[in-house]
Amino acid sequence: MNINGKHFETICIIDRENPVIQVIDQKLLPFRFEMKELHTVEDVYSAICDMTIRGAPLIGATAAAGMYISVCRFEGKSGIDEYVRDTASFLASSRPTAVNLSYAVNAMAAEIKKGKTLADKIRIAKNTAQHIIDMERENCLRIGETGLPVIEKISRLKNGKPVNILTHCNAGWLACIDYGTATAPIYLAHDKGIDIHVWVDETRPRNQGSRLTAWELQQHGVPCTIIADNTGGHLMQHGLVDMVIVGCDRATTNGDVANKIGTYLKALAAKDNGVPFYVALPSSSFDWTVADGINEIVIEEREAEEIKFMQGLYKEEVISMLITDTASKAANYAFDVTPARLITGLITEKGICSAERESILNLFPGKVI
Amino acid sequence: MNINGKHFETICIIDRENPVIQVIDQKLLPFRFEMKELHTVEDVYSAICDMTIRGAPLIGATAAAGMYISVCRFEGKSGIDEYVRDTASFLASSRPTAVNLSYAVNAMAAEIKKGKTLADKIRIAKNTAQHIIDMERENCLRIGETGLPVIEKISRLKNGKPVNILTHCNAGWLACIDYGTATAPIYLAHDKGIDIHVWVDETRPRNQGSRLTAWELQQHGVPCTIIADNTGGHLMQHGLVDMVIVGCDRATTNGDVANKIGTYLKALAAKDNGVPFYVALPSSSFDWTVADGINEIVIEEREAEEIKFMQGLYKEEVISMLITDTASKAANYAFDVTPARLITGLITEKGICSAERESILNLFPGKVI
Repeated sequence: MNINGKHFETICIIDRENPVIQVIDQKLLPFRFEMKELHTVEDVYSAICDMTIRGAPLIGATAAAGMYISVCRFEGKSGIDEYVRDTASFLASSRPTAVNLSYAVNAMAAEIKKGKTLADKIRIAKNTAQHIIDMERENCLRIGETGLPVIEKISRLKNGKPVNILTHCNAGWLACIDYGTATAPIYLAHDKGIDIHVWVDETRPRNQGSRLTAWELQQHGVPCTIIADNTGGHLMQHGLVDMVIVGCDRATTNGDVANKIGTYLKALAAKDNGVPFYVALPSSSFDWTVADGINEIVIEEREAEEIKFMQGLYKEEVISMLITDTASKAANYAFDVTPARLITGLITEKGICSAERESILNLFPGKVI
Repeated sequence: MNINGKHFETICIIDRENPVIQVIDQKLLPFRFEMKELHTVEDVYSAICDMTIRGAPLIGATAAAGMYISVCRFEGKSGIDEYVRDTASFLASSRPTAVNLSYAVNAMAAEIKKGKTLADKIRIAKNTAQHIIDMERENCLRIGETGLPVIEKISRLKNGKPVNILTHCNAGWLACIDYGTATAPIYLAHDKGIDIHVWVDETRPRNQGSRLTAWELQQHGVPCTIIADNTGGHLMQHGLVDMVIVGCDRATTNGDVANKIGTYLKALAAKDNGVPFYVALPSSSFDWTVADGINEIVIEEREAEEIKFMQGLYKEEVISMLITDTASKAANYAFDVTPARLITGLITEKGICSAERESILNLFPGKVI
C-alpha cells in the first residue's frame, strides 16, 4: 500500500552477485522509515527473532527468501541436501507459533531437493521463494475481495455512516507482502470510497497496533484512532464498534484461532455485545494437524524485558526506557487462542467459512486429515 | 503497609499555622519515592486532576482534607457558607467518576455548616476530615477481613499451593489510606502466611498496575508478576488464575460496577472460564442514585496524550516519551462498567453480598432509594 503517496511492498529479493533481501525495518516504525538488507541466513534468522520483520505471512516469505540466499551461498562440494535441511530447521526455530514459517521452509526444502545441479537448485529456490511471495500477495488481495462485501453490507445498513472496525495487533500489509489480511477488506473498502473508521488496539507489549497498524492505515489515508487494549469492551457496550477483524497466526481444523495475546478478550466482548467477529487469514495459516487450539497450540513466551521496557522517541532519538520498577517480575505470553464458538467467520482467499470443521472442510476439501 | 520495611499511610494532615496535607507523589512511583505537601485547595485540586494522588477512597479523603485547609485559609468577614459550598463544587469537579469525591466534599460542607463561629467550623472541618480518613482506613481493614475467608478457602482446596489472584489497576493501599480495597484480603492473607501469587495487570494507559500495584505488593513482600492487560484471558484458559479481585470507582444499586477501563474484559474472561470474579469496595463507593451502570454512569474521557506518551526511567531520569507517530489520533476512555451478571460477589466492609439489588439491600438496609 502507500507510504507518503508512494506504493511499497514489505519484501523484495534483489539479485546481485550474492542476492540480498530488502525489507522494511519494522522495529523503527513509526518513528523512522528505513529499509534493511539481509545478506545471510543468520541475518534472516535474527530479523525474524528480533521482529525486524513480523507477521505470519511475511515471516514465511522472508524465511523462503532466506532459503534462497542460503543456497546461493553454498560452498561445499557435496551434502547440499543436508545443508538445505539444516537451514530449514534453523529458520523454522526462529519463532515457534507461526505455521507459515515451517510451511515455507519445508516447501522450499522439498522443491530445492528436486534440482539436479547446484545451479538448478538455485534457480528453483529463487522461483519458489518468489512464488511464495507472489502467492502471499495474491492471497491477501483475495482475502480483501472476500471480506469487502461484509463491510459493504454494514455500510448499507448504516446508510453510509462510517463503519467502525476494531482490529488488534498488526495484520496489515506490513505483516504480509501487500494489502494485509485483516486490513485487506478495509483497504479495498476505503479505496472504493466506503466511509470507514478503524479502532486500533495498541497491542501491548510490543505495540504493533499503535506503532504499525495506525501508521500504515494513516499513510494510506484510512481514518483511525488508537485505543488502549483495555478499551474495546467499553466501545462495544456503547455501539461504537460495528465489526471486529483480526488476523491469525495459526488456525485449527476446529476453527480455533491463535493470534496476538488479547484477541480472545476482544472476541468475548464482541460475543457479549452481538458484534460480528471475523478472522482474516490465508489458507497457509491453517494447521491441518491441530484440532483443539487451546490444548494443542504451544504459546510462545517471550522475554520479560518486552514488558518492562518500552521503545519510543525522546529528543529525536529512538530509545528504550524502563517502565516498571527494576525489581519487578513480568511474564510475557505472546499469543492466545480464541475458541471457534466466538468467531463469526473466517475470511480466506477461497471465501468465507464458519469457524467449524464442516464449513472449513467444505472450503478446503481434502485438507483435513 | 510497608515500604522498605517501614509502615506508611498515603495521607497525613500536618498541623502548622496553616495546616498542610502530606501525600506520596504517586506520579513518580515506582522510580522515585517522594512525599509532597499540599498547601492550598488549588494544590489539592491539581493533585487530584494530575493524579499525584489517585484511587477513589484516597481522592475522597484528600478532598476532605482540602476542605479543611481551605476553611483554615478563609479570610473574609462573612459568606463562609458560600465559600465552603464553592470549594466543595470546585473540588468535586476535579474528577468526574469517583463517587467518594462528591460524598466526601458534601459531607464536609454539611458538617462545617453546623459550626457557629469560624473557629468552630475549623475544628469541625478538621475532625470530619480526620474521621473520613480513619473511616476509610477502617473500611479497608474490614474489607480485608471480609475477603480473607474467600482466599483461605481456595488455599485449602489447593492444599496450600499458591493461590493465583489476578488484579487490574491499583486498588491497593496507595489508592486508599492503608490496606487497599482489592489488595486488603491479599495483604491479610499474606501476613497470615497463606501462599499467594498476584498477576498484576499493567493497566494501560497509565500503568497503575505495573507502576503502583506491583511496587506496593513487592515492597510488602507479596510475590507478584506483571502482565500485559491482554494476558489474563489466556492465563484463565490454562487454569493459572484462581480468582480475580478488583476495586471499584462506583457501584450501582443493581450491582453494576464502574472500574478502570479493561475490568469488563477480565470479568468476561473470568465468567468464560469459571474463575470467581470479586469486586472489593467500601460502601462509600455505592452510588445509591444509579441503577443501570452501563447507561447511567458517565465515563471520563481523558487526554489522548496519555496514550501517545509514556513515562519511564531513562538515564536515571523520569522522562516522558512519544510512543506513537506524532500524527496518530488516540481516544482515552478511563473506565468501563462491568455488568452485575459477571460478578461473583461484592466484598464490602459490612460483608460479602451478591451483585444484585436484593442482596445489596440486605447488606445495606434502608440505603436504596
